[in-house]
Amino acid sequence: MDKIAQEHLVFFKGLMSERAVDSDGIRLIYSSDETENLSFVPDVVLFPISTEEVAAIMKYCDKHDVVVTPAGARTGLSGGMLPVEGGVVLSTQKLNQILEIDDKNHQVTTQPGVITEVLQKAVKEKGLFYPPDPASKGSCFIGGNVSENSGGPKAVKYGVTSDYVLNLEVVLPNGEVIWTGANVLKNATGYNLTQLFVGSEGTLGIITKIVLKLLPHPTMDKLLLVPFFNAEKACEAVSAIFQAGVIPSGLEFMEKDAIRYTLNCFPELSVPVKENHAAHLLIEVDGFDEEQLMREIERIMEVLENFPIDEILFAESAAQKDQLWSMRRKVGEAVKAYSVYKEEDTVVPRYALPNLLKAVKDIGKKYGFQSVCYGHAGDGNLHVNILKGDLSDEFWENGLPVAISELFQVTVRLGGTISGEHGIGWVQKRYMPIAFNSVQLALMKQIKRVFDPKNKLNPGKIFPD
Amino acid sequence: MDKIAQEHLVFFKGLMSERAVDSDGIRLIYSSDETENLSFVPDVVLFPISTEEVAAIMKYCDKHDVVVTPAGARTGLSGGMLPVEGGVVLSTQKLNQILEIDDKNHQVTTQPGVITEVLQKAVKEKGLFYPPDPASKGSCFIGGNVSENSGGPKAVKYGVTSDYVLNLEVVLPNGEVIWTGANVLKNATGYNLTQLFVGSEGTLGIITKIVLKLLPHPTMDKLLLVPFFNAEKACEAVSAIFQAGVIPSGLEFMEKDAIRYTLNCFPELSVPVKENHAAHLLIEVDGFDEEQLMREIERIMEVLENFPIDEILFAESAAQKDQLWSMRRKVGEAVKAYSVYKEEDTVVPRYALPNLLKAVKDIGKKYGFQSVCYGHAGDGNLHVNILKGDLSDEFWENGLPVAISELFQVTVRLGGTISGEHGIGWVQKRYMPIAFNSVQLALMKQIKRVFDPKNKLNPGKIFPD
Repeated sequence: MDKIAQEHLVFFKGLMSERAVDSDGIRLIYSSDETENLSFVPDVVLFPISTEEVAAIMKYCDKHDVVVTPAGARTGLSGGMLPVEGGVVLSTQKLNQILEIDDKNHQVTTQPGVITEVLQKAVKEKGLFYPPDPASKGSCFIGGNVSENSGGPKAVKYGVTSDYVLNLEVVLPNGEVIWTGANVLKNATGYNLTQLFVGSEGTLGIITKIVLKLLPHPTMDKLLLVPFFNAEKACEAVSAIFQAGVIPSGLEFMEKDAIRYTLNCFPELSVPVKENHAAHLLIEVDGFDEEQLMREIERIMEVLENFPIDEILFAESAAQKDQLWSMRRKVGEAVKAYSVYKEEDTVVPRYALPNLLKAVKDIGKKYGFQSVCYGHAGDGNLHVNILKGDLSDEFWENGLPVAISELFQVTVRLGGTISGEHGIGWVQKRYMPIAFNSVQLALMKQIKRVFDPKNKLNPGKIFPD
Repeated sequence: MDKIAQEHLVFFKGLMSERAVDSDGIRLIYSSDETENLSFVPDVVLFPISTEEVAAIMKYCDKHDVVVTPAGARTGLSGGMLPVEGGVVLSTQKLNQILEIDDKNHQVTTQPGVITEVLQKAVKEKGLFYPPDPASKGSCFIGGNVSENSGGPKAVKYGVTSDYVLNLEVVLPNGEVIWTGANVLKNATGYNLTQLFVGSEGTLGIITKIVLKLLPHPTMDKLLLVPFFNAEKACEAVSAIFQAGVIPSGLEFMEKDAIRYTLNCFPELSVPVKENHAAHLLIEVDGFDEEQLMREIERIMEVLENFPIDEILFAESAAQKDQLWSMRRKVGEAVKAYSVYKEEDTVVPRYALPNLLKAVKDIGKKYGFQSVCYGHAGDGNLHVNILKGDLSDEFWENGLPVAISELFQVTVRLGGTISGEHGIGWVQKRYMPIAFNSVQLALMKQIKRVFDPKNKLNPGKIFPD
């Protein structure tokens, strides 16, 4: 650490004593998230416990041109928290209080460092429901979900994080504290700063309080696992289910290898899968009424009769539902355990999903890579895991980006875009010119400049170099 | 018209011949919307028929520093389309094509000049549902709805316009054409330009195409009119219904005078209302299943048993439902026919609604004005019509704004804000400092500058002088 950084450290230690940490161990932990095998070691990691402390940090860093990168639970998949220019990592880990569950207004006010599942359970105790449930819900922070506009399986019926964020308290890069809106369900008062912050990946300010809308919690659900003999037909069935007027609360796609890797990696999972099953759909409906759910299931079955499927597994018990969801949630982890990988987060209008899947496989053949596809088919959101396997380092570094560019071009041509729920962060930024032209990118950059004129907050993210 | 304006006219006539209109009659029509009795006459009204024509207009106006104000159907209630600095009014009236109803993806792509109800009916023919339904749905344009982030009675269950806007084609003030996002249900790719445009009241660009999300259309609904002997108790019942786990598709509040004026003004409406009814709730549930709706109605009735109500009117036929909804939709018109008025569009967390209503009445007593209150109680959105009656012009001009400021201060203290669905436009901008402090306003102004550095697009709106 250089002399200047040493002076900063003295300030931070004075401000927050043992919550300013520059040990090698902590700095190493905060050098990475769940994105590939990337690592950038920061100079110091700060653990503020209040909005005021965040404001003091930002004010100091603004004055002294210190780079700050906010970090949540570091479960991100696009490298949004990687401190690529070193400096300060500001962890929200100790901003971990649920401040108020307002059951009268169906709202919750929380700090950003609360684990999403902890928040969900807390509001469920009052009969309330916070739907967005990324696969990492057991460890990710709600602040990270807001920053990346996370989705998850329930998005198909209930929407993504942005649909629940009513208001945010934010510390701006200069240390000023603002609220972005009001705690209301409808708002036509000035520009929508709230939605500008949602999904901005920690580049515009540090989110210190979050007001979320909640729903009454559904009281029951039904779950089906449907084996298809043809993967593209499984994608087609997704659209057909919606055409029949049913909105499932989950509609997940897993191709053969996704399930195979998962069952190999987690032998405790017991799911009957046959060799000739090319893909599966996991279909959930939820609600408040047994009979209505059964009628929805019937309508889904009628649709599926017209597709090449094997015997449907109807989850009989809570334990069996857990098994099936657990299998779905562990796919990412299993595939990644198998090989070095790159994960793409393509999203298209849902009817274009079979075309997208076909394009992934065609491009894979052309460039010679293996991919494992799964994801939130109901939203048209397909996660594409590209396995390194025995591909050369040379191809991995220089050839693969060409192939990925081709995939993203197809995605955009299909009406889609390059990230549905993982964000752009560090690893996807080079592909931004496929999704946006120079005019659009210039507008976004100017917006960044409005909030962060010195480009000291989470620099190097979103925008191509 | 001065010589410079005359030169511009020559250009516009050359570009669009008879669709550039400077007749006194058309200029007078485009001098006003539905906001109070305000009128600002533009120099010329342009009726472009394509995005390319809008781009040519904007390019020319940018180069020659001509002020442009976009206009939809001029049904706005905050003066968003008033050409307060003269210049060009750019009407979207001839951008009136529904371009594609994509029933496979549950999306519609439309130009901005399509009447909202026309759009709703067109998608309904394919079994699809576009829920936002402002009271003016029979005449307002979808482009205006996007620009003002309109709501309407169905917002309580289905959300407001912003919840349905997936992507926008926009002509920027310099004439460049961009899309703001992608046609997808989830998007974590860069800053959310789409939601920045929604509700920006035509100050950042001209919206030329709109991609909206659609839902399967509910197949049935039930409607109740519930008379209360006490208006604040009616507001309390609103919250209690949600607490019981029911989400109605409409939950409207009308105080006594709102109904009285409406029934007087429209004698063809026949609704049994008694002298001792202090307020009514109009409650609708919708869905796909008769039995489930009946169970929801039962749960609502159980809640209402604990409140001071008279006999509930259960709408028996489609005709009776139309009568009740028609009455609700005509309240604004009826109250305004009765007196010169000012309409406020307060919104609070719904449980705070009784407090807000009480504050309106207390402030009315203090300052000596009569108000008629009604609105979307399920969203906490209360329209407050202040009647001029025999109040002095002096009080109306100088005294009333003090009273309104007091009302808005209470609204913000209750966690709310100053406009739920009408926008800020021209008439509410002086109150913006109650909703936002100087830091927040400065950020919004800088965002305006990013898109419109010369401040030539719809100037004089949103921001206080």
